[in-house]
Amino acid sequence: MREGKIGVAILGLGTVGTGVAEILSQNRALIFRRSGMDLELKRVLVKDPSKKRDIELQQEIYANEYRTILEDPQIQIVVELMGDLHPAKEYIIEALKAKKAVVTANKAVLANFGSELLEVARQNSVPLYYEASVAGGIPLIAPLTESLVGNNISSVMGIINGTTNYILTKMSKEGKAFNDVLQEAQALGYAEADPSADVDGLDAAHKLAILVALAFDDHIDLKDIYCEGIRSIDTMDIRFARDFGYTIKLLAIGKKTNAGIEARVHPTLIPVNHPLASVNDVFNAVFVKSQEVGELMFYGRGAGRYPTASAVIGDIVAVAKIMAGTGKALPRKFGSAKTLPITESSGSFYIRLMVEDRPGVLGDVAAILGRNGVSVASVIQEGRAQDQVPLVFVTHEVKQGALASSLKTISQLTCVHEIANVIRVEKGD
Amino acid sequence: MREGKIGVAILGLGTVGTGVAEILSQNRALIFRRSGMDLELKRVLVKDPSKKRDIELQQEIYANEYRTILEDPQIQIVVELMGDLHPAKEYIIEALKAKKAVVTANKAVLANFGSELLEVARQNSVPLYYEASVAGGIPLIAPLTESLVGNNISSVMGIINGTTNYILTKMSKEGKAFNDVLQEAQALGYAEADPSADVDGLDAAHKLAILVALAFDDHIDLKDIYCEGIRSIDTMDIRFARDFGYTIKLLAIGKKTNAGIEARVHPTLIPVNHPLASVNDVFNAVFVKSQEVGELMFYGRGAGRYPTASAVIGDIVAVAKIMAGTGKALPRKFGSAKTLPITESSGSFYIRLMVEDRPGVLGDVAAILGRNGVSVASVIQEGRAQDQVPLVFVTHEVKQGALASSLKTISQLTCVHEIANVIRVEKGD
Repeated sequence: MREGKIGVAILGLGTVGTGVAEILSQNRALIFRRSGMDLELKRVLVKDPSKKRDIELQQEIYANEYRTILEDPQIQIVVELMGDLHPAKEYIIEALKAKKAVVTANKAVLANFGSELLEVARQNSVPLYYEASVAGGIPLIAPLTESLVGNNISSVMGIINGTTNYILTKMSKEGKAFNDVLQEAQALGYAEADPSADVDGLDAAHKLAILVALAFDDHIDLKDIYCEGIRSIDTMDIRFARDFGYTIKLLAIGKKTNAGIEARVHPTLIPVNHPLASVNDVFNAVFVKSQEVGELMFYGRGAGRYPTASAVIGDIVAVAKIMAGTGKALPRKFGSAKTLPITESSGSFYIRLMVEDRPGVLGDVAAILGRNGVSVASVIQEGRAQDQVPLVFVTHEVKQGALASSLKTISQLTCVHEIANVIRVEKGD
Repeated sequence: MREGKIGVAILGLGTVGTGVAEILSQNRALIFRRSGMDLELKRVLVKDPSKKRDIELQQEIYANEYRTILEDPQIQIVVELMGDLHPAKEYIIEALKAKKAVVTANKAVLANFGSELLEVARQNSVPLYYEASVAGGIPLIAPLTESLVGNNISSVMGIINGTTNYILTKMSKEGKAFNDVLQEAQALGYAEADPSADVDGLDAAHKLAILVALAFDDHIDLKDIYCEGIRSIDTMDIRFARDFGYTIKLLAIGKKTNAGIEARVHPTLIPVNHPLASVNDVFNAVFVKSQEVGELMFYGRGAGRYPTASAVIGDIVAVAKIMAGTGKALPRKFGSAKTLPITESSGSFYIRLMVEDRPGVLGDVAAILGRNGVSVASVIQEGRAQDQVPLVFVTHEVKQGALASSLKTISQLTCVHEIANVIRVEKGD
């Protein structure tokens, strides 16, 4: 091999780090033939070099002091795969200041400090790439930033958390309750012992913060993302949704409106024939709409050793080309946008009330909705001869704030036992 | 604006050319902000500069002699959007020899002369990009070549012809016959007056030739692609396919096998829950499998002014960065692979016979299949008390050659009136 020989260091040899090290070694000739880049793994930073691992590396490749990597002039690319915020953030900054390109898969670091890190990269004229941070192996960031560079993107809607999609798929297909499926998912390793980052939507919110910046050229603050998880979804809701022609998915949604950027993560009813509706199990997908290209969807595996490593490798080759060339293609600048409060965002809603089983209840509820300007698209009344029965609506377009006040009034009716669930509907138009 | 000012010329101002010219002018500041590239449309080559058009350009932008563009040192990128083989091929070669980068959307030129054109680009150290040539606005070539650079791709399966997908979707949803839907599609402008390039699969074969080279690093000869269109699909086949749990799509399939590369375009049964099954109307999608990243799908609009222009603009920015930099990222070299004869390719098949309505027919047919090593996965026998009735099978995996010989024997049975249809099944595994 010749031309473009580039030294690479990996920080962290966990699931993804091991995958990257394997592909770098096994596919080195393939990558060189395709790209002209000869990538050599020079160093791997680990806490304990003597630990038994899935991969066999020569002993001299291990480093347990970061300085060894920072001071090695033959290392031009640092690949951060440690996870967590610290010291990942500091290590990325030190690498950039040492004029080394950085590739990371760390969504938390980017969602929290992306703006700062990209600025350090610009100041030091080195690239910082992060394809693997959103939707794992799916090529998404490169297409959004490069292929769609001429597009005015109006919305992104993603199934970007595999754990919750697995749980909702199982609940939907097998009629099992949330808690039962969660336990199964934990047993299979699809959910963590503490599942809250996934099931409460925080993981998806991190990724949405990154997606929104790329789609709309504006950083938003993680805390401005409205975030609602899937714990409240009952199998009954899944069944009623199906009766209305919908599937329930946890969507991360970014929309550009005249009033500001909407950024929200919540369970959502989507029509069964929408391309996102058939994204099942642990698969991820991101649906993008723009004025120019119309609708696009990117589908694939959002996690896992080799899918994530595939995205990291793509980034390594891209930054290697830049390091071998002129140092062009630096991170672009983002603005910072106003995020629209969730009460101002409009949409259609699925509402399940548990009500007294007597005539007139529907009329009482409908009257309140009507007085608040909430128009009903369809209704299901089910059961009879039970203590309480479900009364289920789908509304037309309404502001979330207006809906909230009518629901408050409805909750005070004596015939209404409970507002059991309120879930967003996205028609995909 | 400053840095990276790049002059662009467009050859041809048809549907796509107009879209590219519009986006270049309307989104010039947006593109500059994102990429640092200031793209100036310097010239447009048209036959008749005085013709009334959808777009208003200053009169001095029009050129009617190609020499004007070739000899202009301020033009660094030539965008070929004329279509057809000649003089598109010659114009591309002349631009490359004049050290200008070329962007083209011309699938026919690439499928026929891709190898030669890429070699000219390499010799002249200028890029030749062609994202829009396959699947219109869907980012596909950049993800395949760059994001997936570290992947061993094993198969690509695409719905890459919008006309046939529109026809099959209509036949499927409305139960209408092929000819009726074709006429509707022609009236709506979704199908040409002479529809053969679309409905007989040739358009898809052109795009498959390009996809196969990118996925497997090997050029294949257009004439080695097995090509079968959708004229033979009866609404009855769509109905039986549904009974078996399948949808019928025109797929372009490339697979890497130990024996060689399979490249074929034909109607295909795919399971209704496969992501490709819900790609409807004029939408395109390409499903990719690799050892590393697993399954991916890219979905979007395969044609139209702005979707196609979006892809062309993405390419223009990418080559502009290269022209502004060092001239790295030249076209990679492809090998040339053995294409597997279609008779050697294995698969599962849907077979519809029209047979005499009497007992024993199934036994006779099954016996012949059994003797030829063709194993049956499921059978539907329908109707009774008619002159002839359908007898429908889905087979297990079998070589197409072995199936053909058993069908030949079956066709000689007096109780078999007709082998009405034989369609491939792809289980997506």
